[in-house]
Amino acid sequence: MPTKRARTAASPQAGSTGRRRPVLKFRVRVTDGEAIAVGPGKVDLLEAIALTGSITAAAKSLNMSYRRAWLLLDEMNRSMREPVVESAKGGSTGGGSLVTDAGHKVVALYRQIEHDAEAACQRDIRALMDMLAR
Amino acid sequence: MPTKRARTAASPQAGSTGRRRPVLKFRVRVTDGEAIAVGPGKVDLLEAIALTGSITAAAKSLNMSYRRAWLLLDEMNRSMREPVVESAKGGSTGGGSLVTDAGHKVVALYRQIEHDAEAACQRDIRALMDMLAR
Repeated sequence: MPTKRARTAASPQAGSTGRRRPVLKFRVRVTDGEAIAVGPGKVDLLEAIALTGSITAAAKSLNMSYRRAWLLLDEMNRSMREPVVESAKGGSTGGGSLVTDAGHKVVALYRQIEHDAEAACQRDIRALMDMLAR
Repeated sequence: MPTKRARTAASPQAGSTGRRRPVLKFRVRVTDGEAIAVGPGKVDLLEAIALTGSITAAAKSLNMSYRRAWLLLDEMNRSMREPVVESAKGGSTGGGSLVTDAGHKVVALYRQIEHDAEAACQRDIRALMDMLAR
């Protein structure tokens, strides 16, 4: 699973003990038995396919192999009632790929959940962040 | 393009309960530069130390090596203003270990954030779960 890079120091001079900016991230995962039906890497991938119109280009933009991207999509398609990505005519090498309506809905719900979760916890998040060494 | 799996009987992994139950999980992480200051594994570990009174016993209860537990605690202690665990007299092999007030506060805030996040997103979580194949 590709991990989001943590935000780095505001300036290189900050050094290892300097003013790094701590970040709190919610990662939401829907597991179904052994399978991860929906997770951050899969949602990033769907967004990249919507943007680029192809699995190959999307995988490249995420520093992910085509094979890895394909496996993530396969796992997601198997887990959902409706497929989240469909290939246009010409197959995966020719006609590009489209995020389906169901795929767009997954992305929208996922991002909304991330957003609302953080919004709902602002006070406790601040209290936790205040406990960090600066 | 990955194809949707034909609906099949529950997999052997489902065991005697038949249908798998999809689960949505929030995982909250606080990163500080390269370090993970607070995350699910660390909070589980703090709870296990509070329960067992020792790093060794806590690590064992989580199927974690002592070394791994120690590294997680070290990373957390370095990231926080105050240490989250302290060794009682006799050191880590003799006197056991205590979760500090700061450590208990981290656990409480973390669990509260997880709980409130999920509570705030019930409707969208349900909508997302409804998209899963059953």
